Amino acid sequence: MSSELGNNLKITIFGESHGTAIGMTMDGVPAGEAVDAAEIYAFMERRMGGKRFSTARKEADLPHFLSGVRDGVTTGSPICAVIENTNVRSKDYSALENKPRPSHADYPAWVKYGGFADARGGGHFSGRLTAPLCAAGAICKQMLARHGIFVGAHIASVGQIADARYDPVSVTAEELALAGGRAFPVLDEAAGEAMQAEIAAAAAEKDSVGGVVECAIVGLPVGLGEPLYGGVENRLSSAIFGLGAVRGIEFGDGFAAAAMRGSQHNDPYCIENGRVRTKTNRHGGVLGGMTSGMPVVFRVAFKPTPSIAQPQQTVDLAKMEETTITIEGRHDPCIVPRAVPCVEAIAAIIAMDLLLEKK
Amino acid sequence: MSSELGNNLKITIFGESHGTAIGMTMDGVPAGEAVDAAEIYAFMERRMGGKRFSTARKEADLPHFLSGVRDGVTTGSPICAVIENTNVRSKDYSALENKPRPSHADYPAWVKYGGFADARGGGHFSGRLTAPLCAAGAICKQMLARHGIFVGAHIASVGQIADARYDPVSVTAEELALAGGRAFPVLDEAAGEAMQAEIAAAAAEKDSVGGVVECAIVGLPVGLGEPLYGGVENRLSSAIFGLGAVRGIEFGDGFAAAAMRGSQHNDPYCIENGRVRTKTNRHGGVLGGMTSGMPVVFRVAFKPTPSIAQPQQTVDLAKMEETTITIEGRHDPCIVPRAVPCVEAIAAIIAMDLLLEKK
Amino acid sequence: MSSELGNNLKITIFGESHGTAIGMTMDGVPAGEAVDAAEIYAFMERRMGGKRFSTARKEADLPHFLSGVRDGVTTGSPICAVIENTNVRSKDYSALENKPRPSHADYPAWVKYGGFADARGGGHFSGRLTAPLCAAGAICKQMLARHGIFVGAHIASVGQIADARYDPVSVTAEELALAGGRAFPVLDEAAGEAMQAEIAAAAAEKDSVGGVVECAIVGLPVGLGEPLYGGVENRLSSAIFGLGAVRGIEFGDGFAAAAMRGSQHNDPYCIENGRVRTKTNRHGGVLGGMTSGMPVVFRVAFKPTPSIAQPQQTVDLAKMEETTITIEGRHDPCIVPRAVPCVEAIAAIIAMDLLLEKK
Amino acid sequence: MSSELGNNLKITIFGESHGTAIGMTMDGVPAGEAVDAAEIYAFMERRMGGKRFSTARKEADLPHFLSGVRDGVTTGSPICAVIENTNVRSKDYSALENKPRPSHADYPAWVKYGGFADARGGGHFSGRLTAPLCAAGAICKQMLARHGIFVGAHIASVGQIADARYDPVSVTAEELALAGGRAFPVLDEAAGEAMQAEIAAAAAEKDSVGGVVECAIVGLPVGLGEPLYGGVENRLSSAIFGLGAVRGIEFGDGFAAAAMRGSQHNDPYCIENGRVRTKTNRHGGVLGGMTSGMPVVFRVAFKPTPSIAQPQQTVDLAKMEETTITIEGRHDPCIVPRAVPCVEAIAAIIAMDLLLEKK
Repeated sequence: MSSELGNNLKITIFGESHGTAIGMTMDGVPAGEAVDAAEIYAFMERRMGGKRFSTARKEADLPHFLSGVRDGVTTGSPICAVIENTNVRSKDYSALENKPRPSHADYPAWVKYGGFADARGGGHFSGRLTAPLCAAGAICKQMLARHGIFVGAHIASVGQIADARYDPVSVTAEELALAGGRAFPVLDEAAGEAMQAEIAAAAAEKDSVGGVVECAIVGLPVGLGEPLYGGVENRLSSAIFGLGAVRGIEFGDGFAAAAMRGSQHNDPYCIENGRVRTKTNRHGGVLGGMTSGMPVVFRVAFKPTPSIAQPQQTVDLAKMEETTITIEGRHDPCIVPRAVPCVEAIAAIIAMDLLLEKK
Repeated sequence: MSSELGNNLKITIFGESHGTAIGMTMDGVPAGEAVDAAEIYAFMERRMGGKRFSTARKEADLPHFLSGVRDGVTTGSPICAVIENTNVRSKDYSALENKPRPSHADYPAWVKYGGFADARGGGHFSGRLTAPLCAAGAICKQMLARHGIFVGAHIASVGQIADARYDPVSVTAEELALAGGRAFPVLDEAAGEAMQAEIAAAAAEKDSVGGVVECAIVGLPVGLGEPLYGGVENRLSSAIFGLGAVRGIEFGDGFAAAAMRGSQHNDPYCIENGRVRTKTNRHGGVLGGMTSGMPVVFRVAFKPTPSIAQPQQTVDLAKMEETTITIEGRHDPCIVPRAVPCVEAIAAIIAMDLLLEKK
Repeated sequence: MSSELGNNLKITIFGESHGTAIGMTMDGVPAGEAVDAAEIYAFMERRMGGKRFSTARKEADLPHFLSGVRDGVTTGSPICAVIENTNVRSKDYSALENKPRPSHADYPAWVKYGGFADARGGGHFSGRLTAPLCAAGAICKQMLARHGIFVGAHIASVGQIADARYDPVSVTAEELALAGGRAFPVLDEAAGEAMQAEIAAAAAEKDSVGGVVECAIVGLPVGLGEPLYGGVENRLSSAIFGLGAVRGIEFGDGFAAAAMRGSQHNDPYCIENGRVRTKTNRHGGVLGGMTSGMPVVFRVAFKPTPSIAQPQQTVDLAKMEETTITIEGRHDPCIVPRAVPCVEAIAAIIAMDLLLEKK
Repeated sequence: MSSELGNNLKITIFGESHGTAIGMTMDGVPAGEAVDAAEIYAFMERRMGGKRFSTARKEADLPHFLSGVRDGVTTGSPICAVIENTNVRSKDYSALENKPRPSHADYPAWVKYGGFADARGGGHFSGRLTAPLCAAGAICKQMLARHGIFVGAHIASVGQIADARYDPVSVTAEELALAGGRAFPVLDEAAGEAMQAEIAAAAAEKDSVGGVVECAIVGLPVGLGEPLYGGVENRLSSAIFGLGAVRGIEFGDGFAAAAMRGSQHNDPYCIENGRVRTKTNRHGGVLGGMTSGMPVVFRVAFKPTPSIAQPQQTVDLAKMEETTITIEGRHDPCIVPRAVPCVEAIAAIIAMDLLLEKK
């Protein structure tokens, strides 16, 4: 119930940051689907550390497939992929025992699991758990592409600095691939430079900064998604909040729509090349929980990384007294660049889940 | 799968706007819980029509309980509540046949159901389906109150006009009840006057306007919610998108957090009266998907009502040609006031669902 | 979770025997399926009382459809059907308060629901709850027939008296319909006479008698059913135990297979009219949880009706002392004849659920 | 959906017999539970090969825990356990390509997965997949024992030869442990000798033989299990059919009850040491889907091993012509001895799942 994602595809994520290994199982993948390992690895590299703005911890985050794939083709039985945990430096965390880091999961997890959770490196709540998620997403991206469905994302903002936006009416598969192909995943590279400067400034001040990721899916057939609680937004939002640090999600014009008049916000229908389309796409490709045939567009707000190198006030839960901690260790001053492929992975998994419903 | 909500409580919503009846079943309600019908009706009246800013359609929206409640006490077996559809004026919709209303579910539903969906009045996608939802929510509110858990909501904005906000650290059960007790559910009555003027202005221009609802839950124990995909935000967001017209949801500081530094956004821990608390509550009461013991606070963006009385461009799906429609009938120029109890209902249902997990 | 059946079709059964009404919701029925009310009623009559060997209680067990069906065709949104409870004689049960009837659900329900369950007439555990189940099954039978899939059942035995069996290799849709068309649902009418005499004898002795129902499904495509826990037997057995009084289920040769050698039990493959078949069908149409293309054949054991008019030993739960009760009221001396359509209903629902998985 | 077991505990089984590894994930295990690896291994040895009546294939079937357990205690996050596939002799199976073995899953799997399933050694349908199942069951047995709940099983029959039965009223934890402690898991060792002779005789004739396993659970509190489709029998039967070769399941008096009168079958209530009990236990510890407080007793029928060394008729699916095969390789002439711990594992998992519902 907790660590499981999807209705037709069922993905279970397991593992703790400093345990033996992390991984995932995927049940419900159709048989006969080609799985390109090199493409999976290339996708996963996009979320890996060792780069300029990411943690110095070098992750050997490539998965080992234990089942469900034979000679590069799915067999129809559950896929299991495992990523060994190596390069673990648990001593970084010992000073924090019983002292919950502000804005982390530590305190509620301490209460919930009675102190038995493996809190090292965030344990099961670590951002590291997005590695197997990206493996699952990469497999889904390959399957979707064979149906003419493409997913892409980019950094929409870091702090106050905004990137360009996808054109919600005409965005193409090529444009969706653009940001992912860059070392810093933006559409407007000048904005990207400014964002990188902002991240460096935050890091220099032992601080961190938040941002927004925009994601789009093109090529989905009309009518996917079930009414009320099985719709596209229900499933995407539920899955997106499974990423750490997410504070909000909006579809189409999102919160801006709340300040509009209906005459501004409604999207008129038209016919283009014999197909029903909307002239604008303020609705973000979803109406009544169902795909409209227009690109599905949504944005996700990420808070600033809670691990900062400044002293912070907390409590010692064992002694029940207030205290101060300083978080050592390797932490991204901004997780948004690494969140981009994670958002794509979620979008691809849910898109595939929706598509399997129709078959 | 589609029309079902909750993990431990399972709520199924059924019915079409102009069919025989609508209703809900609730499976998983504990036995021995008192159910006060008058309180249910009072809560449901908050979302009913017949008032100044709501549709002229008078809804006899009071539910009839068929099972699961005996002599005002739950029996432990599934509750079924039914609301008859009376006062239906289906002719209003006949002119729209095959001509999807912009920004409604009509077009994807037409494709998905092959033309067989009962589109009259929005059918299964009608806002009317929130009536049985509110019945379920009212029952949950009563159960929660006996555990010291309280839910409230208010209009945070209509168009450009903003209400005051809940204090996320110190909001009380009494403050949460405030807006619900008013004819126009706001905290700041001057802002409420301005909102009502804005709604009237939109209506006068045959237009509509959107808005935001803010909701808070107080009294939840620490540690409810499961990691990754079973967390508080996952479940609340998924359920909230089951309400029509929702375009976004954010928790705590939400999208604003994306523009902050970590040192601004992190909430320091302290001890108050022997309990662990945070001095600020930018995290909105949820960390790592689990309740932190602070008030859970979230906001929901609603688009402007798509049904407006101006001519709009659409297509005739049968003839596959572009055409123009004008939507007659009774429609709210702003659904946000009626959405307030619906958001509360969802929050109460998910809070009860989370609580049952702990038992 | 409790009262819900199916994966793709989701059926929720609600109601208590002596409450206001009982009924069901069906979510996931495809749009555009014709629903013939007369056929539903005819099917439901097969399980109704008022006949020679059934209870004298005349049930007006015909359902009223509240949603999901318009002008005799499904709309794709959830179906709700309600059956009013009339002709209720609750006084029959008052003498039994706190005195659990042997081999009924009374005692564990009393503990589980803390005395709040509506125990009148068995409450939510009453055999009366099979009426809405049969309504759901009848709808599924109609949909299945349009795919060339047919379900039938008959009484395989009452007490020591056995009926003929279906030929598991060659049974046809016509043969499956045979027993259902008879007042006493057997294949061999001479055996049926003997069974009726045995039931009459039990009744005369204020006793009851058990029996076995055999069911078959023909026309299912090869490969339906998922491995391990999502297979045909898993889903059928789980659903069948939702009928009261079931004590066992077996597929193909069932328990007899346990006494066989492999060389006797294995079914050799052959080719008939260009299709792969097995020469015998000891496997009952399911291999590895998946349909083999041969008829699916299973048998269900029902215990004797626990309500008998003889004095029985029980305990007064309020006083915690041993006591004796005599059950008055109207009870079938053998529920097996009425169980036949219920088993068919379950088989039809699961067959439809499996078929929807493939689409 | 396919390879998943349990409601509160969720167990996913993955792997193929001749792939890289097999294993399982368990989500929902409470934090802080001690896990004794030696006990797990001891339990798993009971189902391992290398013994007189089991396959000559020596399995290194001991699991490696990747997550969810730290220093021998559960952390509350999902457990993943992996068993490497070594000692694989895939050439044994190449001669069988496209030639489905009678009474195996080969043919429906070939159709379902379009020829992409890894059929070597039965692939995902192999009995080898019960190894991780037993690991999960062993963990549940340890947790149950701390609640005073015990599970045991024994061979009730092989071919025509019957063992003694558990006394359904008075069976104790010690008696339940008896058979599991023996090399050949029976209650009556003389019957065990005769069974072993029967198995040896079948093997000598290049044949196999079936049998029945009886299982009991003691110590469950009253009232576990949900009505209709969430009951004890529903969940146990559904899970038991996830074991290969199962043809039937019965509770309490099972199929024999169908030949009884109600006056014989009903279990009178009495009070013993201040607790409500039944004098007999023909109902097998479950009434209305709920535990009655008496031992839960059920029996499972297993067919004879379908892999026999005699020539058998089948079809070549590629050429669509009839042909003959002889199955080489290492196969148990009777799987029933190794099925005993598997049935216990299922019973323990479902018992734990039920118990977690109550918490």
